[in-house]
Amino acid sequence: MMNKIVLLTLAGGVLLQSAQAQQSEKVDAAMLEKIKDEGLNRSKVMETAFYLTDVSGPRLAGSDGLQRANAWTKQQLTSWGLVNASIEPWGTFGRGWDIEKSYVALTAPYYHAMIGAPKAWTPSTPGTVKKQVVVVKATAEADLDAYKGRLRDKIVLTDVAQPPKTNFEPDARRYTDAELQKLTEAPATPATPAASPDAERQLATRRAQAALRAKLAEFYLSEGAVAVLSSRGGSEGTFFTTNGAPYAPDAKPVLPEMEMAPEDQLRLIRLAEAGIPVEIELETRTRFQTQDLKGYNVVAEIPGTDRKLKSEVVMLGGHLDSWHAASGATDNAAGCAIMMEAVRILKAAGVQPRRTIRIALWGEEEQGLHGSKNYVKNHFADPATMQLLPDHAKLAAYFNLDNGAGKIRGIYTQGNEAVVPIFTEWLKPLASLGATTVTKRNTGGTDHLSFDAVGLPGFQFIQDPLDYGTRTHHTNMDTYERLPPNDLKQAAVVVATFVYNAAMRDQKLPRKPLPAAKAQ
Amino acid sequence: MMNKIVLLTLAGGVLLQSAQAQQSEKVDAAMLEKIKDEGLNRSKVMETAFYLTDVSGPRLAGSDGLQRANAWTKQQLTSWGLVNASIEPWGTFGRGWDIEKSYVALTAPYYHAMIGAPKAWTPSTPGTVKKQVVVVKATAEADLDAYKGRLRDKIVLTDVAQPPKTNFEPDARRYTDAELQKLTEAPATPATPAASPDAERQLATRRAQAALRAKLAEFYLSEGAVAVLSSRGGSEGTFFTTNGAPYAPDAKPVLPEMEMAPEDQLRLIRLAEAGIPVEIELETRTRFQTQDLKGYNVVAEIPGTDRKLKSEVVMLGGHLDSWHAASGATDNAAGCAIMMEAVRILKAAGVQPRRTIRIALWGEEEQGLHGSKNYVKNHFADPATMQLLPDHAKLAAYFNLDNGAGKIRGIYTQGNEAVVPIFTEWLKPLASLGATTVTKRNTGGTDHLSFDAVGLPGFQFIQDPLDYGTRTHHTNMDTYERLPPNDLKQAAVVVATFVYNAAMRDQKLPRKPLPAAKAQ
Repeated sequence: MMNKIVLLTLAGGVLLQSAQAQQSEKVDAAMLEKIKDEGLNRSKVMETAFYLTDVSGPRLAGSDGLQRANAWTKQQLTSWGLVNASIEPWGTFGRGWDIEKSYVALTAPYYHAMIGAPKAWTPSTPGTVKKQVVVVKATAEADLDAYKGRLRDKIVLTDVAQPPKTNFEPDARRYTDAELQKLTEAPATPATPAASPDAERQLATRRAQAALRAKLAEFYLSEGAVAVLSSRGGSEGTFFTTNGAPYAPDAKPVLPEMEMAPEDQLRLIRLAEAGIPVEIELETRTRFQTQDLKGYNVVAEIPGTDRKLKSEVVMLGGHLDSWHAASGATDNAAGCAIMMEAVRILKAAGVQPRRTIRIALWGEEEQGLHGSKNYVKNHFADPATMQLLPDHAKLAAYFNLDNGAGKIRGIYTQGNEAVVPIFTEWLKPLASLGATTVTKRNTGGTDHLSFDAVGLPGFQFIQDPLDYGTRTHHTNMDTYERLPPNDLKQAAVVVATFVYNAAMRDQKLPRKPLPAAKAQ
Repeated sequence: MMNKIVLLTLAGGVLLQSAQAQQSEKVDAAMLEKIKDEGLNRSKVMETAFYLTDVSGPRLAGSDGLQRANAWTKQQLTSWGLVNASIEPWGTFGRGWDIEKSYVALTAPYYHAMIGAPKAWTPSTPGTVKKQVVVVKATAEADLDAYKGRLRDKIVLTDVAQPPKTNFEPDARRYTDAELQKLTEAPATPATPAASPDAERQLATRRAQAALRAKLAEFYLSEGAVAVLSSRGGSEGTFFTTNGAPYAPDAKPVLPEMEMAPEDQLRLIRLAEAGIPVEIELETRTRFQTQDLKGYNVVAEIPGTDRKLKSEVVMLGGHLDSWHAASGATDNAAGCAIMMEAVRILKAAGVQPRRTIRIALWGEEEQGLHGSKNYVKNHFADPATMQLLPDHAKLAAYFNLDNGAGKIRGIYTQGNEAVVPIFTEWLKPLASLGATTVTKRNTGGTDHLSFDAVGLPGFQFIQDPLDYGTRTHHTNMDTYERLPPNDLKQAAVVVATFVYNAAMRDQKLPRKPLPAAKAQ
């Protein structure tokens, strides 16, 4: 086995056939070498990542930054020779929202500029406000009685659930061989996990928390508070962000709210609880956009060349939207830059794919996979009714990348056991790049699920975790620095190889049985 | 040996004598138990740390924050029953400086609030300025020619020497047994390292760099630039700080300068270098204080009770001043809180020390050990002339703590070989707390050097490094969160034990030979 991998890696121009796979998988070794050469030696992935992050800026759903990124990616894909590039509306999303000013400082007992950002979709403060604080610790609605009449003209400080602790673990890590082996051996996880008392309890807890948050927001507003400062975690200047109000045009009003670095939030809380008067200076200016409530995906194609197969499509994608406090580098400029680089590599390598290759850069993923879900509904099938559109029969595969900036170590098959031997064969010439593992396991949380939900073969790659969970995912520190160039280059080569193989294969990738329509 | 430690730890009220030490060391096991009990079970060290950090705020030399801390510590030490508490001037320091406003944001190509702080002793911007940027990369004066005439009305961006990289090492760590063993076995390092070509080269490089920095500052000012943004390192929201101008009242004028989180600085540089117009909005308002140019140390005493020995003094201390972008928690509120806690424990344990115990909280350490150096000069000896004052003969020992918030693992003897067996004996009952190691090595960088320089027995403890080097030392993230309570409690018990032993011992601690006077 090792020898064959070496042979595949070194050989040029020879078409090899594997006898191991259930269906023999043709692997065009010469084209794989071209892909590797282009992707590893003439990479443009970091340049693309720079335009997606630094130049576009934060790309919150519906924001100016996302519009800039949409326009740039359409133009860039076209300039690489892709065709039919389009910023395709998928339906109604909601309000756009951008930050125009964000400033928060402690002004008594002394001056200290603090680290924070407005929560997404929260309104502006009435200019600069300078106010005293009240710490509110409420885990149930009844707890609010104690604060009645105490919040007027005050800034509310909410508690920090998990204060930072001295950290003896590295922020970033790679998968070990043992972990990858475990993934290889893991059984298929069921697509829909069976209902369990645990899962139901968790769901009930989450619903209760959401209801409490809504009650709290209403209470702060009705009591005449000026703004809210809160913290969802992080440490040492890193903080996590999310939305502070719905993006729906008819969302209930809420107060201006800043998400704070926990160190700053905790200092304020400690001072206030010690009875020391705390004064905050705060200005947030946010802008809502309600002219265009639609959401968009960017798509572009390398046309197929086989008379019979060119109406079939291999798709690849990642989401272009991000959170708002950083430039969304690992979540998910990385995935988009890698997917764009994969199609650039294929063009540069002069591929003549039998099937059409279509890249999709999704909008509004962070707000609920909206871009991909609606693309699938518009083009392939509605998961609720399972009424199939004609193109449902034409999709050979969808490949997604959205687990940070780590290099690709393999692929999740989402319980599609028939693809295991195919992907195993495809990975062999990529073993020297560290991509070796095929797991039957599911993985969730991103856009391949939209395809999987209607029985289409949608896959997410296994990526080294790096610092995705600790430092970058949804934080203010998800910046260009978090993108290791060699990881992105490797990933683009792996993706280009998979996409090429799927476009050249005699058959579309095997599918799981169609899911049932959901009860209406 | 193990049995004896257990015995010492468990026994109450028994006075044990060790036969192992070169000079038998009396260890009052009952008092040690009282110290441990008070320090571990009724600690106030975190409360003290809270007042030093959150309540006092940043404590830059000469700042309002340092004045607040001076006043509070004097009052607090007095309230614990210490006497002769005093905020003692040590001589002329320079200008005080405080931040009153600090705001910096990217405003084009899009809005992004950035993380930064004014460099210490830099002036205010003329209100809010909104300007384009120029990236200046100069490693020699000749490089400046290229920028002549290009800086007027611009904000200068200087380069980032070490861009952040994905970090696979933990931020925090403790000493391993093997590392401690190595310290135990290490030979004494000479007090004054022999001049080496390497050392001379390094010194020459540092001087050349300082000269270049001065030239650059002058150039930016003379060319009509508006402000400077620079970055000295850090990552993920952590950035390092220092001074951007001298504190001397007659210092040459410089431009306003912000020290930036590297992620923000690098984003600006990448955009500008790609030819994309970058606009910055910036406001710093800093306040100089020139009414009182003096520097101060806070001192207080537990008086000695032995008729013959009470004129002798055991000192303990740490520096109270800090840098300005955080609340100086590990550098060095930790050391001060631990030293204050040590004397509080001794008072609570009802000690009747034979010698007088004197705590000193130093000012202006960060600007060159000024507080301790001048205290030593005023009270003990001038290291230049080595003219000894009468109290030089009266100092039994000085113990310092200033290597972060990590628990004490042992002590550096600064090449004083005669104290090795004494400290070895003193550590035995503390082994169960993790303090075991006596090293002949020197350690530098803080206030015990001021004592060592005039032949007085001054010592710094060995502390677990934790995240001192990576996250806290001189950063904007040196906050209360960085103080692990159990480490601080342990350290206070160890310090109280050492101070008590030094105050009760028949003889003062042995000294090294007096150093020679420096050539005048």
